[in-house]
Amino acid sequence: MDIKNYITTKAKSAKLASRTLATCSTNIKNKALLNMAQALMSNVESILSANKKDIENAKKDGRNAAFIDRLSLDANRIKSMADGLIEVAALPDPIGEGIKTWKTEDELNICKIRVPLGTIGIIYEARPNVTVDAAALCIKSGNSVILKGGSDAINSNLEIYNTIYKAAVSSGLPEGCIEFLDNTDREVVNLLMKLNDYVDVLIPRGGASLIKSVVMNSTVPVIETGVGNCHVYVDSDGDTKMAEDIVVNAKTQRPAVCNAMETLLVHKDIAEKLLPHLGETLKNLGVEIRGCSEAQKFIPAITPATEEDYETEFLDLILAVKVVDSLDDAMDHIYKYSSKHSEAIITNNYVNSQRFLNEVDAAAVYVNASTRFTDGSKFGFGAEIGISTQKLHARGPMGLNELTTIKYVVYGNGQIRK
Amino acid sequence: MDIKNYITTKAKSAKLASRTLATCSTNIKNKALLNMAQALMSNVESILSANKKDIENAKKDGRNAAFIDRLSLDANRIKSMADGLIEVAALPDPIGEGIKTWKTEDELNICKIRVPLGTIGIIYEARPNVTVDAAALCIKSGNSVILKGGSDAINSNLEIYNTIYKAAVSSGLPEGCIEFLDNTDREVVNLLMKLNDYVDVLIPRGGASLIKSVVMNSTVPVIETGVGNCHVYVDSDGDTKMAEDIVVNAKTQRPAVCNAMETLLVHKDIAEKLLPHLGETLKNLGVEIRGCSEAQKFIPAITPATEEDYETEFLDLILAVKVVDSLDDAMDHIYKYSSKHSEAIITNNYVNSQRFLNEVDAAAVYVNASTRFTDGSKFGFGAEIGISTQKLHARGPMGLNELTTIKYVVYGNGQIRK
Repeated sequence: MDIKNYITTKAKSAKLASRTLATCSTNIKNKALLNMAQALMSNVESILSANKKDIENAKKDGRNAAFIDRLSLDANRIKSMADGLIEVAALPDPIGEGIKTWKTEDELNICKIRVPLGTIGIIYEARPNVTVDAAALCIKSGNSVILKGGSDAINSNLEIYNTIYKAAVSSGLPEGCIEFLDNTDREVVNLLMKLNDYVDVLIPRGGASLIKSVVMNSTVPVIETGVGNCHVYVDSDGDTKMAEDIVVNAKTQRPAVCNAMETLLVHKDIAEKLLPHLGETLKNLGVEIRGCSEAQKFIPAITPATEEDYETEFLDLILAVKVVDSLDDAMDHIYKYSSKHSEAIITNNYVNSQRFLNEVDAAAVYVNASTRFTDGSKFGFGAEIGISTQKLHARGPMGLNELTTIKYVVYGNGQIRK
Repeated sequence: MDIKNYITTKAKSAKLASRTLATCSTNIKNKALLNMAQALMSNVESILSANKKDIENAKKDGRNAAFIDRLSLDANRIKSMADGLIEVAALPDPIGEGIKTWKTEDELNICKIRVPLGTIGIIYEARPNVTVDAAALCIKSGNSVILKGGSDAINSNLEIYNTIYKAAVSSGLPEGCIEFLDNTDREVVNLLMKLNDYVDVLIPRGGASLIKSVVMNSTVPVIETGVGNCHVYVDSDGDTKMAEDIVVNAKTQRPAVCNAMETLLVHKDIAEKLLPHLGETLKNLGVEIRGCSEAQKFIPAITPATEEDYETEFLDLILAVKVVDSLDDAMDHIYKYSSKHSEAIITNNYVNSQRFLNEVDAAAVYVNASTRFTDGSKFGFGAEIGISTQKLHARGPMGLNELTTIKYVVYGNGQIRK
């Protein structure tokens, strides 16, 4: 079978399943998720042995330690995947929720209700846990899913997929509800991005280059996730202790994630009070600081910050620091460099807090809190499939609701249009 | 200036304006809309004289009567455009609306609020009224807009644009809030579709081929509008009088629009009672009927329906008619051919009505009413920029809310993530 036939067959199968899934009862979906969890736990040995092959291949290919860590599974990580399925089963079913109901001037009763998107394609890197997480959220929201994982994880993914798919179908979900693309030819992704007849949306999960490539090449609608060039601005009226705690948290608590801070902006009137101690603390935590000429006056022996530093999502223990003249300067800097993910101001000035919240354009804007809270679970959504940095359809953490669309259900009694 | 510079300059200008527009007060936006209306009414003569040039050119180019009708303006049509601006000014401002407010387990107070999308590109055909309608809805929802109208309307559009733009800016809206692309080189649209840095969304308005071309070529996110292959299914338990009224309305009241019916499905048990009289009525109204072999038994002297007829959005006084064995057959036909715009069932059977509403996948599903009601004004949205037939972001009639996105405003008191 050629690649075009291969991918079209899988996509058609997912599309067909989506018709049944759309009206699947909450009970059946939840039963399937719980059985998928149980199946994973019953199959730990085979999954670990498949994972071992992937790890060996990755080592042979000279992959770095971080890559191999993301790829690696152990009994605990498989247990986490199973727990994730159980958590998604416990979340409320978004499908059928009435968003609004009203009567029109023609006496039509209209209900705007939540329905599944249809078929969702997920393109991701070599992280086997995404196979389970993505399938769980798509199934719970009544969508079929087509999974395309990184080829370095092919053995792990296939074993995981076979395990959960069998459990899903034997629990009463339709065949094709989860499709996995086991052909690692690059052409598979290129073709997937053009299957508008079968795929309703593509969500790329991974690094900036993967996401950009999908945005640039897909004719299927895409939800962009992930890139976070986030700022914390300490206003002249900010509390220095609070500022230090938040900056340390936003930079160091988990530097490799998208909601971590990349650039610190400091009002000139508080720089002398804040920066010497904060700089010392950050250095002691292993943070490499790159500062503007003003920042260099208050933190000794740091690298000068370049234009490129302000543009970069370091995802690492590196921080750019810039001293600004005013709130407006801070907001101009953010406007220029921000990826519109998460932006925070530390201040006790009411007017400035309101201006920042109103004028800064980002998925999440904070006063006096760490940017690290931009997250489906911290927002109370229960689970997330990613954090959208685009404005269309979904913005910010994407939970189950963001995997749905709406339809208008209209009850008439013979109305015709005059 | 080359075309790339030309379009980038305009797009940058619109993007810059969008930053100011996002926080523009409702009063200023409304004042601008009312002044734009007044300016149009003060400039009727020049607009009509520009329009005259376009009409002469269109006639020289051999355009058909329907094309020239859509292109033509008169004092009444300009008055309608001005009235439209006044109506949009009277609508509630969507920006700043709180969609949800909650407190998280970390004691963060989060408000999910409505904010503008940013910069909206509208690509449309030779209908000068769209220049005004689209600008009004974008401005009211706090977005800047880049207009690319059909080149046949270039003189009319330019005169209208200059009129409303001057009024908008002199009312306090930022320069660049409305940009008009007066270069009719086809390359302009190609470049516009790739300006992801400056344009947040593109909305093509027009025929199927224009829309398809934008969907296939744009890297900027697109909202698809318009194509409606809509069905009415008359169930065995339907009221024949009501069925006839609704079918006549859905087919003939305005056949050239997307929410008009294109195929009638009739349950076999009601075909003999319904079709002879209904067929006669439709024929008397000038409808050409193309029927399946069963339908041909009940309506004399009609053309046989082909596969292509079932696939076609006629947008004309042509109707395909098919007799089906069951509700399931009707829903299978709709699943196969529907463009998921508007679908109706005529029935007095409760179970069948519920099955149809639940199982048919479309932006709007109706019981006992004409599909012609799928429309922003009939739904009570006040005005619409189009009817979305895609599932992402907006589905069905798109009013002001559908031209917005959301942001999360988070109030903390020093929270850091553990």
